[in-house]
Amino acid sequence: MMNRLMEEAKKKAPIVVGLDPNLSFLPSQILARAFSELGETLEGAARAIEDFNHAIIDAVYDLVPAVKPQIAMYEQYGIPGLMVYQRTVQYAKEKGLIVIGDIKRGDIGSTSEAYANAHIGKVSVGNQRISVFDEDIATVNPYLGTDGIRPFLKTAKEEGRGIFVLVKTSNPSSGEFQDRLIDHKPLYELVAEKTAEWGEEAGGKPYANVGAVVGATYPEVGKRIRELLPNTVLLIPGYGAQGGTGKDLKPYFDKDGSGVIVNSSRGIIAAFRNERYQSYGKTRFAEAARAAVLDMKEDLKEARA
Amino acid sequence: MMNRLMEEAKKKAPIVVGLDPNLSFLPSQILARAFSELGETLEGAARAIEDFNHAIIDAVYDLVPAVKPQIAMYEQYGIPGLMVYQRTVQYAKEKGLIVIGDIKRGDIGSTSEAYANAHIGKVSVGNQRISVFDEDIATVNPYLGTDGIRPFLKTAKEEGRGIFVLVKTSNPSSGEFQDRLIDHKPLYELVAEKTAEWGEEAGGKPYANVGAVVGATYPEVGKRIRELLPNTVLLIPGYGAQGGTGKDLKPYFDKDGSGVIVNSSRGIIAAFRNERYQSYGKTRFAEAARAAVLDMKEDLKEARA
Repeated sequence: MMNRLMEEAKKKAPIVVGLDPNLSFLPSQILARAFSELGETLEGAARAIEDFNHAIIDAVYDLVPAVKPQIAMYEQYGIPGLMVYQRTVQYAKEKGLIVIGDIKRGDIGSTSEAYANAHIGKVSVGNQRISVFDEDIATVNPYLGTDGIRPFLKTAKEEGRGIFVLVKTSNPSSGEFQDRLIDHKPLYELVAEKTAEWGEEAGGKPYANVGAVVGATYPEVGKRIRELLPNTVLLIPGYGAQGGTGKDLKPYFDKDGSGVIVNSSRGIIAAFRNERYQSYGKTRFAEAARAAVLDMKEDLKEARA
Repeated sequence: MMNRLMEEAKKKAPIVVGLDPNLSFLPSQILARAFSELGETLEGAARAIEDFNHAIIDAVYDLVPAVKPQIAMYEQYGIPGLMVYQRTVQYAKEKGLIVIGDIKRGDIGSTSEAYANAHIGKVSVGNQRISVFDEDIATVNPYLGTDGIRPFLKTAKEEGRGIFVLVKTSNPSSGEFQDRLIDHKPLYELVAEKTAEWGEEAGGKPYANVGAVVGATYPEVGKRIRELLPNTVLLIPGYGAQGGTGKDLKPYFDKDGSGVIVNSSRGIIAAFRNERYQSYGKTRFAEAARAAVLDMKEDLKEARA
């Protein structure tokens, strides 16, 4: 799946659109329509998100290889929210997009296996094997070590899917633990080394089925991780809204100018609220998102120049 | 909530029953009944789990202060599974139990806030504030640092609820990262120190609203963490099925012989499959679970003797 992701990124752009819809920035007409039909309920919130997601996907699917729905933004609206998460995954796949489920799950043994089955595999019920949330790739938290990762490796290999391991996140306090030195190396380097081992176990050539999440906000870290992980796809959050720009990302790309997928969530899906795109107005929010993707594509060319 | 948990633990026993139902160990009559009605579907699996959980809760609710449903075991059965997760939380609360949602979520900023709202808080939809999964306490992964924890602290404080931070997990590979030395101290000690700070931020006396997960399988670690966290509730997985016994747990208790809640999942809910309780047979699985709780209660007395 990582190799398909990189092929599509080469054809389109190394961009993934983060589908992290928050009612606070949805266009008011979408909220009004959903609430008038379903009330200020979880169902109403979920309907608004679904309408919004469809419009965004329709506006960008030909420009980008992938979308990354953030499951927390759906889980907060309970069962109706998670139903929309699931339908958003399906809708994006029908449009030919690769779906990266930003689930950041992490547990051990049979519990980790349950998450792997739910998200990138199939679950057994009696003699049936059933796809559940059915993302192509999932993000995974490494704090519990190999026990927590292994079930995902097995599933990724069997199903031809992938995972991204959190190595160095883009948030300000990511350094509290991730940057601390262990045998003169920051913790995130140890996690990166393990990610390489896990990648070998999960298969995939030239890119391993195990990628790494590395924040856009630390170019020196990107450089170091690229040295440690020459054949690994890096998923880069923190572009745009969190401060990173295209030329900062040069060190993250591999020797072929590939191996990278840059996420932007609010910078794209809430572009209509950005001064730069305000001429679109709230009714043309999806066109604003498309314009933001095209601008981001230009900006990222600087990283590969 | 941590103080209520400890009061109830004193009255009943310092035991939490892990509701980690896996179809592979459910009694065959429960599966047969659910499948005959709903087929080998996600709905059928979810129904079997719900029937099983109700029987277990009915059999143990007067003996223990809390249950800990492991959300992965429900999430793997998709929407029907998560509906049963939600109803299990409600059913347990109706029986007077405290519910610890074993969700191990961990993200940043507004995403972490979404998880906190979904699980121990309320979500805003228009002018409404709605409870969603509505657990009393949730487990949280610390790898992303304070940014990921803070929204949970705020919610815990406002709603009078709590979180358990993963400090040292009970699995064999937990040492890969958690045991690595940073300034001569293992990573889990740094996380424990942060847990103390987070506890002050979230309030709660004598026990802070932020507890720590520390595996039963490392008594020397339990001792050290108890020194670092004298007023913190420790949630201890790994008893029974994963190898720990009562007397190993002595170092985890605080100076008052309290401050601890020991989890057993399969050791209780699948007791009827254990040689020791096989006389109950599969039809009396719930009575076997009750017997296992009573035996565990006796065993834990050794830890406090």
